Amino acid sequence: MTWLESIIAEITPAQRANVDVVQAHLDDLTKPCGSLGRLEEIALQLALIYGDPPPALSRRHVIVFASDHGVADAGVSAYPQAVTRQMCAVLAEQRAGINVIARACGASVSVIDVGVNVDESMVGIENRRVRRGSRNFAIEPALARDEVELAMQVGFDSVRDRSAGDDIFALGEIGIGNTTTAAAITSALLGLDAKTVCGRGTGIDDAVLQRKMDVVSSAVARLPACPDPLAVLSEIGGLDICALVGALLGAARYERPAVLDGFIASAAAIVAVRLCPAVRDYLFAAHVSCEPGHKLQLAALGLQPLFDLRLRLGEGTGAALALPVLAAAAALLRDMATFTDAGVARQSIV
Amino acid sequence: MTWLESIIAEITPAQRANVDVVQAHLDDLTKPCGSLGRLEEIALQLALIYGDPPPALSRRHVIVFASDHGVADAGVSAYPQAVTRQMCAVLAEQRAGINVIARACGASVSVIDVGVNVDESMVGIENRRVRRGSRNFAIEPALARDEVELAMQVGFDSVRDRSAGDDIFALGEIGIGNTTTAAAITSALLGLDAKTVCGRGTGIDDAVLQRKMDVVSSAVARLPACPDPLAVLSEIGGLDICALVGALLGAARYERPAVLDGFIASAAAIVAVRLCPAVRDYLFAAHVSCEPGHKLQLAALGLQPLFDLRLRLGEGTGAALALPVLAAAAALLRDMATFTDAGVARQSIV
Repeated sequence: MTWLESIIAEITPAQRANVDVVQAHLDDLTKPCGSLGRLEEIALQLALIYGDPPPALSRRHVIVFASDHGVADAGVSAYPQAVTRQMCAVLAEQRAGINVIARACGASVSVIDVGVNVDESMVGIENRRVRRGSRNFAIEPALARDEVELAMQVGFDSVRDRSAGDDIFALGEIGIGNTTTAAAITSALLGLDAKTVCGRGTGIDDAVLQRKMDVVSSAVARLPACPDPLAVLSEIGGLDICALVGALLGAARYERPAVLDGFIASAAAIVAVRLCPAVRDYLFAAHVSCEPGHKLQLAALGLQPLFDLRLRLGEGTGAALALPVLAAAAALLRDMATFTDAGVARQSIV
Repeated sequence: MTWLESIIAEITPAQRANVDVVQAHLDDLTKPCGSLGRLEEIALQLALIYGDPPPALSRRHVIVFASDHGVADAGVSAYPQAVTRQMCAVLAEQRAGINVIARACGASVSVIDVGVNVDESMVGIENRRVRRGSRNFAIEPALARDEVELAMQVGFDSVRDRSAGDDIFALGEIGIGNTTTAAAITSALLGLDAKTVCGRGTGIDDAVLQRKMDVVSSAVARLPACPDPLAVLSEIGGLDICALVGALLGAARYERPAVLDGFIASAAAIVAVRLCPAVRDYLFAAHVSCEPGHKLQLAALGLQPLFDLRLRLGEGTGAALALPVLAAAAALLRDMATFTDAGVARQSIV
């Protein structure tokens, strides 16, 4: 049995509470039935992951995977590849978007270098570099099979090692070129045209967008008709996305909710769910981003986003914003009074 | 000069920063230009309220105004009027929906009785009762002019007294029958049919909904064509809504952001902005609720909600959920690195 097969064998569906019992509890809370809408659905999902009641979700952790993408050399991004490394330095200084947003939302942040294109280790960044960036999949396969697996292990380990100390994970990434990689994976696994899944990423113009579509379209054409997810990651994947896949498997294995950020994390979720359908039970979609393919990914995953705030930064920023909402949902089942114990009239007068 | 006139004379528009300077600051943050979407718009509004940078918004306060509505006697609600008092007890025990959600979102909660239909003071509830509920506006004017003003003062004072210790206010209410009152106010001030603004509130059936529409329609018909807002509050208002109007004036007067909860708080916002247009600068819409009239109110106010979570509980629950998002927006301007000081390549390669 391979490493991946043994991990998948250990993942079980989230059924740690009885749906009818939890629903009856939600309906007995001192509020009109169903009046907390989506929060009640989230509470139910958390109860299935954790049992009823779920913990307070006060230990909130954001994991950001950083890597470079060789496909950036094909001229598909508005920024040079060096920006990945430069932004890692800002993250290490706790001054990037995700740092300030996570603080406001009561979450800590870890940044893991799974493949940034630098020689040295970066101060303040956990060095788990598999290689210095993926290869340019416009001209060759992005990753060897063992590189895919090593990067997945980095992600899996990052959740495993934190699962005793953290209640919930928000998952994000940073890597110039990674919307192109995510678009290619999405195109390959959902059978969608490059045109449908390619967006403007960090803000590219029409000419670059056309180039991005061409690169995605011809790279995906190299794959067989119904490719297996690992073959997709190898041919057109990226190290950050492989690590995200591993982290999602880790969340399911260690029975923790995982909050997806945007387009890139959702591409990883499609891979993870394809590898192991039970992973779906542990996923929450924080927001729908500006990338046109994101809503198609979420529909394929059967996930409904909590927000539409027109975010397109990445780094886990959207996922971090959702953490207090999920904690609020958990708190309903933990701390809210019921009609039964509060002595409030629940009968209608009508 | 009346009390209200003197308050309004002291309110100034939120222009405590230069829009172009703040926008340049936002554009210089280490992220693709505009990539934090709505968060950037919120950050700009907070800077205009507070100056650039705004404070961290770590001192978050939810104020819940409680009162009864005589119109509940007309059979327009799914719950008997006694539930207002019973729910106040749950709030005082810190076990209502708003208590648990506020804790998860880092906010404290005050509950102010501005007109619950009980004799005694309620333990754990601030007693500022103007009278025991409004009159039934299906058969007579709801409030005397001085009762309207007294309730507005309760709301105003509640923000004034907390403005030194709190950075931001989320405003909510509890009061059986108050969606009927809010619908009547909205109908009167926006010139909308009763049918358009009456929803199912806590969960009424078709027959009760029809009665609610009839009550609203005939009460609004007693008002002149373009009624002044105080006449509307007197004829068809409620004490919680009057207090919310006062609290919104207080937030503007003391230069604090005010986060609206749902349909009832938004009805109060329409009144407050009609009395003093500068109040609009201080308002944030947390969510759009299930009440069909809520989106019409928000459109009239020119506010875009952050979430659509199908909430319809009230108590300030939706507003509390928005507080971490607003704090995150403030943190962008306070703590995030700029291209200028971080030495990150901002030029495009394309």
